[in-house]
Amino acid sequence: MKPIISQAIIGRLALYFRLFKSLYEDGVQVISSEDIGKKLDITPVQIRKDLAVFGQFGMKGVGYYTSELVSQIGNILGLNNRWNMAIVGVGHLGGALANYKNFETNGFKLTALFDKDTRIIGSYVHGIQVSDVRNLKSIMTNRNIQIGIITVPAPEAQGVANLLVESGVKGIWNFAPTKINVPSEIPLVNEDLAMDLSTLSYHISRE
Amino acid sequence: MKPIISQAIIGRLALYFRLFKSLYEDGVQVISSEDIGKKLDITPVQIRKDLAVFGQFGMKGVGYYTSELVSQIGNILGLNNRWNMAIVGVGHLGGALANYKNFETNGFKLTALFDKDTRIIGSYVHGIQVSDVRNLKSIMTNRNIQIGIITVPAPEAQGVANLLVESGVKGIWNFAPTKINVPSEIPLVNEDLAMDLSTLSYHISRE
Repeated sequence: MKPIISQAIIGRLALYFRLFKSLYEDGVQVISSEDIGKKLDITPVQIRKDLAVFGQFGMKGVGYYTSELVSQIGNILGLNNRWNMAIVGVGHLGGALANYKNFETNGFKLTALFDKDTRIIGSYVHGIQVSDVRNLKSIMTNRNIQIGIITVPAPEAQGVANLLVESGVKGIWNFAPTKINVPSEIPLVNEDLAMDLSTLSYHISRE
Repeated sequence: MKPIISQAIIGRLALYFRLFKSLYEDGVQVISSEDIGKKLDITPVQIRKDLAVFGQFGMKGVGYYTSELVSQIGNILGLNNRWNMAIVGVGHLGGALANYKNFETNGFKLTALFDKDTRIIGSYVHGIQVSDVRNLKSIMTNRNIQIGIITVPAPEAQGVANLLVESGVKGIWNFAPTKINVPSEIPLVNEDLAMDLSTLSYHISRE
């Protein structure tokens, strides 16, 4: 259940972060939990509870300061840090993620690519040379990589996860369409693009 | 603000759907809003409000029936329908999505691929021949395609969106890292993979 729990809270924080950032950039300095609730369709009680957990953000009778929220939620979400990432599996998806431009603007830096295919090892993607997955442990340590992204086929995902854990990875983002097990102290996010499609199918169904 | 509003509600429904499906498969027949709240870290008030909007789901003093919820939320999210999809832009990301296996198990079927590059047009990806984007309108109609996925570079995204709208698309999933404008009656989901990474950076920051 852990990934679901995490995503519920963090998903809301990510929504708050985007809203407050957009309001701040539009010159809005203060917003009430009622107005946040209307914009995001979340109850004001839930909003006050969410924001209270992480410290004293709001001012009673005034509202929440957007600049303060952007900075504090950014800190909470770790978006003001810099993270080094490695992709394991440089197939279609791994190659696509390596070329995805939005990561770096949010503090995430791709610093290594791994594959086991000798035809791919040594080639360059997005300016990074693909390394042999057998050298994963030493490269992860030398380049101080905290996040491992798994884009190998499902049957190989658990093996790669084990290797990442042994190399001291701090968090794993799994795109392989299978359940993998990692020690509970290692945060794991399972990406399910099909669930994101449900936003679309919901709206189309209701037209 | 529309995409953010949608994602807040639908995101919760998708979480409910996954939870109830997993409970149902584990033999759990009934669950209270308090227990749902503990598992998903959402207040019971928010849960009852969310589920009440869509009809009479729960039984007072008993709880919610997992089988009923899986079926009804599946219907609400449109996951019991079948949707035809087209990908526009068969580069790294488009190619990766074309090969993504999890779509079909959720009722989403890829039925067309488009590109403007003559070196790609005519080739096959995941068993589908890449068509010339100039034939987009007729192919979208002939193959009854409801969902358009944009995976072209940012500067070309708005042009592709316009073309999809003219072809009568019912919903758009945009992976290009740019803001696009479509008529308000066309649901638009902007995929921001960098925001998903914030789940990981949040947990790593708190270790």
